[in-house]
Amino acid sequence: MGHVRRRVGDGWDGVTPTAYGNGSERHVLAGRGDGATQVELRVFRVPPGEATARERHPHEHAILVLGGRASVLLDGAEHEVGPGDHVFVGSMEEHRLTVLGDEALVFACTAPVDR
Amino acid sequence: MGHVRRRVGDGWDGVTPTAYGNGSERHVLAGRGDGATQVELRVFRVPPGEATARERHPHEHAILVLGGRASVLLDGAEHEVGPGDHVFVGSMEEHRLTVLGDEALVFACTAPVDR
Repeated sequence: MGHVRRRVGDGWDGVTPTAYGNGSERHVLAGRGDGATQVELRVFRVPPGEATARERHPHEHAILVLGGRASVLLDGAEHEVGPGDHVFVGSMEEHRLTVLGDEALVFACTAPVDR
Repeated sequence: MGHVRRRVGDGWDGVTPTAYGNGSERHVLAGRGDGATQVELRVFRVPPGEATARERHPHEHAILVLGGRASVLLDGAEHEVGPGDHVFVGSMEEHRLTVLGDEALVFACTAPVDR
């Protein structure tokens, strides 16, 4: 039931991205539909000038920036991040990623499957 | 309790890598020591000519290759992967990543905190 998904162009082989508001895309690399029961891995692409939703929820996120730059709101403070940088969002911490510059923000984001 | 860890050189600001056999390094970007209770995110660096342990365990992995190339053993078959490619390892699936070529293999790997 494991799988390999190869990077092809702006996406992954066998993964159909879904719209995620404001022209963003969500690529689910591993999730419930693949038989995952523990950890979900998604990649988001957010266009220049846009941001993710400002939200707060019980589940944690571990994020890795793959491309572009962003200002990350994390519990009241803003942090500028770029390729290779990591952000951990704890349970119930308010967070939002706002794209900086003219390049799309691409980031990998994990969350538990059950949430 | 959330955090930002910036990429610096071959590692991350505030993260001390630990040895992981055969000259490999493990960088824990988010884990129990950071207050994470759900999802752990680690980055492994495996030198040329080496491989990760061949193992099988109840917890799942969602993997993203950040650099280098590898042959991935996944439940009896080998798959060649490179930068940007993703591997999902299901519960109790045998797996091992063997470095191909003369560049170190660097990959992000998630697992549940409780395992």
